[in-house]
Amino acid sequence: MNAPSHPESLRRPVPAACLDALKAIFGDRFSVSAAVREHHGRDESPYPPMLPDAVVFAHTTQEVAELARVCNEYLVPLIPYGSGSSLEGQLLAIQGGISLDLSQMNQVLSVNAEDLTATVQAGVTRKQLNEEIRNTGLFFPIDPGADASLGGMAATRASGTNAVRYGTMRENVVSLTVVTADGRIVRTSGRARKSSAGYDLTRIFVGSEGTLGIITEVTIRLYPQPEAVSAAVCNFPNLDAAVQSVIEIIQMGVQVARVEFMDAAAVKAVNLYSKLTLRETPMLVFEFHGSPAGVQEQAETVQAITSEHGGMDFEWAERPEDRNRLWTARHNAYFAGLQLRPGCRASTTDVCVPISRLADCVRDTVDELDRASFPYTIVGHVGDGNFHVLMLLDSESEAEWQESETINHNLVRRAIAADGTSTGEHGVGLHKMQFMVEEHGEDALALMRSLKHAFDPNNILNPGKIFSW
Amino acid sequence: MNAPSHPESLRRPVPAACLDALKAIFGDRFSVSAAVREHHGRDESPYPPMLPDAVVFAHTTQEVAELARVCNEYLVPLIPYGSGSSLEGQLLAIQGGISLDLSQMNQVLSVNAEDLTATVQAGVTRKQLNEEIRNTGLFFPIDPGADASLGGMAATRASGTNAVRYGTMRENVVSLTVVTADGRIVRTSGRARKSSAGYDLTRIFVGSEGTLGIITEVTIRLYPQPEAVSAAVCNFPNLDAAVQSVIEIIQMGVQVARVEFMDAAAVKAVNLYSKLTLRETPMLVFEFHGSPAGVQEQAETVQAITSEHGGMDFEWAERPEDRNRLWTARHNAYFAGLQLRPGCRASTTDVCVPISRLADCVRDTVDELDRASFPYTIVGHVGDGNFHVLMLLDSESEAEWQESETINHNLVRRAIAADGTSTGEHGVGLHKMQFMVEEHGEDALALMRSLKHAFDPNNILNPGKIFSW
Repeated sequence: MNAPSHPESLRRPVPAACLDALKAIFGDRFSVSAAVREHHGRDESPYPPMLPDAVVFAHTTQEVAELARVCNEYLVPLIPYGSGSSLEGQLLAIQGGISLDLSQMNQVLSVNAEDLTATVQAGVTRKQLNEEIRNTGLFFPIDPGADASLGGMAATRASGTNAVRYGTMRENVVSLTVVTADGRIVRTSGRARKSSAGYDLTRIFVGSEGTLGIITEVTIRLYPQPEAVSAAVCNFPNLDAAVQSVIEIIQMGVQVARVEFMDAAAVKAVNLYSKLTLRETPMLVFEFHGSPAGVQEQAETVQAITSEHGGMDFEWAERPEDRNRLWTARHNAYFAGLQLRPGCRASTTDVCVPISRLADCVRDTVDELDRASFPYTIVGHVGDGNFHVLMLLDSESEAEWQESETINHNLVRRAIAADGTSTGEHGVGLHKMQFMVEEHGEDALALMRSLKHAFDPNNILNPGKIFSW
Repeated sequence: MNAPSHPESLRRPVPAACLDALKAIFGDRFSVSAAVREHHGRDESPYPPMLPDAVVFAHTTQEVAELARVCNEYLVPLIPYGSGSSLEGQLLAIQGGISLDLSQMNQVLSVNAEDLTATVQAGVTRKQLNEEIRNTGLFFPIDPGADASLGGMAATRASGTNAVRYGTMRENVVSLTVVTADGRIVRTSGRARKSSAGYDLTRIFVGSEGTLGIITEVTIRLYPQPEAVSAAVCNFPNLDAAVQSVIEIIQMGVQVARVEFMDAAAVKAVNLYSKLTLRETPMLVFEFHGSPAGVQEQAETVQAITSEHGGMDFEWAERPEDRNRLWTARHNAYFAGLQLRPGCRASTTDVCVPISRLADCVRDTVDELDRASFPYTIVGHVGDGNFHVLMLLDSESEAEWQESETINHNLVRRAIAADGTSTGEHGVGLHKMQFMVEEHGEDALALMRSLKHAFDPNNILNPGKIFSW
């Protein structure tokens, strides 16, 4: 597939003295090998690779600070790299420069069980964290599809299936250690649960996609593992019935932990990929957390509401292994979808709208998708009004790419018109830049730009992402 | 009481042409009368009044934008004023200028019950909002002691007794309409529950105390009124027992809606002021929200945990009128405390620490307070690690003021050493400015300052607050 050329695809020269300085700092953790650069010049976006000039593997915040000082001195782009799972081109070195691989900064630094917090290096992944804290009785709920790094999740303001109850990275990052463009080390806040002491530096960096500073440590909120967990699937005659059920469930105050939508094609893909036998209709997958009695009460309320809306086959997954199989299947829906068209390349959308507008937004999108030349699936974090269309494109067809882009653009405009957003959790990267004016307006974007200029006056931090300089 | 002179107490001249321009825009909603200026030059802080040169009463966002353009042209300070209830000197016109009274912008603009959001003008107060939305079955939980305006609550990142379950203004503001220093009108986001579309402008303005922009409209999250509510009080032999109970309750995953601490002196004050007969020992006041069965289950768990820690007299307030009396009494604890020393002037502290450090922090503070020359009470949002000492000072005694300041400073340093914050919910204003370097460090403060310079290059927006220019 021919990805679009990008207007900022302009490499900046990287002086040999810069590379020498980095070699001196990082030794054999500095690389200019083609294979390493290739690996760091791609992500899960539909764009072709755009390689950095060199890659360094940091072990400490101090090393990152030294790196930033060198890059700032030589005006060389610096792109933080966590696990490589971003979806919108965030990692691509469109102006060349240095890719900073943080995956070896993978220590869980402290767990404060009484305070329900943990502090980790940025390269710790969400699965690693949950594995390491399992015996504390606590867990970290934010779960994007990939086993992303906590630093990357903070930088992208990621969320996942648990956000309807536990929030996103916005709500669950307590504090960050950040290296600034000129190599200062800043801790954005203490560990108090709340503070009114000045500007919210933590949330300035959460979602900034590496453009304002480099996140090297993350303090996150943990939650008690629920005493009881129960999951269920429920089939619906159509999308509207499913969405209306969710609206009523939330208005009743039922604190569902997860409520995920899959269209019939997504269910089919998941069945094939994960060897399940789910009925292939529009479906909601629920999970409930609480006391045994509380979980049962929630489930009964939900079952009653879904029944009123034509929900069928309310099926329980009581045993942990059944639940795990179900949720693993849901997390693999992206890869399952890819298998519906072997060899295809995928483009994924990510709009989020107020839930009252969700059914209309999905319905209009389906009308358009049903006329498309390629297959698709839809999955959604429906309790948040966030849904993804996975478009399965012939990887050689420029026409299919253009068609998918048109559908994505129409979808984004539909979402913005509904007072929603072009991206609920994947971030802007390269792919959503074109919608920033439409979504925020020139004046809001001017404020964002002035913040970027203030924090990174030489435009070395992941340049050319989110908006143009 | 002689309040400290402030280093930035330097009035800027307000040209007659500026006042003329404002008179032309606001007509009889422009005032230079002594009484009106006096009313707008004070708040609930221990500082004496510092009057603005004029006061305007805005009705629309467009008027606020015109005002900002005029002030920016003439380099005249502009101080937003909501309900006058701030506690740290946020409203004082230390450099003179124009006080912008937003209390007449008091319309609830829309309620989106399906999305659990409402949009209000900045002058709507929290009680007014809850009154107006009562018949929707929804409510807004954030409840600072005063009946503050939503704009002021957003600007101060306020919270209150419900924060342990529902979060603070940080988590509950969905979007803002903001007027910038140069008079542009910006909406900070749509109404989607989550977004990864660029920098988090909403949370940049939440907590910025009028120094980055003027909040004119606020979209907030609403919650379903719980099906069942129950409250209880529990006496403890000492503070440690109460705090340790709360830590265990939260670690068990019990979602208490409120858990408030009062020391014996605060209980005594509340008894006198609100004609109650609570036992005058350290006390926790709980509230539970949920289904009838869920509330009962939570309460049983809590009762079991408190019993293990020596909690006594677990007493229920089942009837709404009993609950309301109890919580009204708690909300009036500040005014009740004042009555312990008639004619006194109060100074209130506001530190917040990780809950694991709370008992130590309060105990060390009590040791110091017990040697003080004046009476005090302690109340705390103990589930958040946030507590207030109300120090009741002879209003004529400079010595008592200095003594209270020393205690406050020691307390703040104790909180910062415990990885906490100088202010959990009251904000910085003038009174906490001196601690910003100690709390954040020079480099973090430099980032905040660069943001201020980017958003308000002429330093007209509530100048001299949070940190020096």
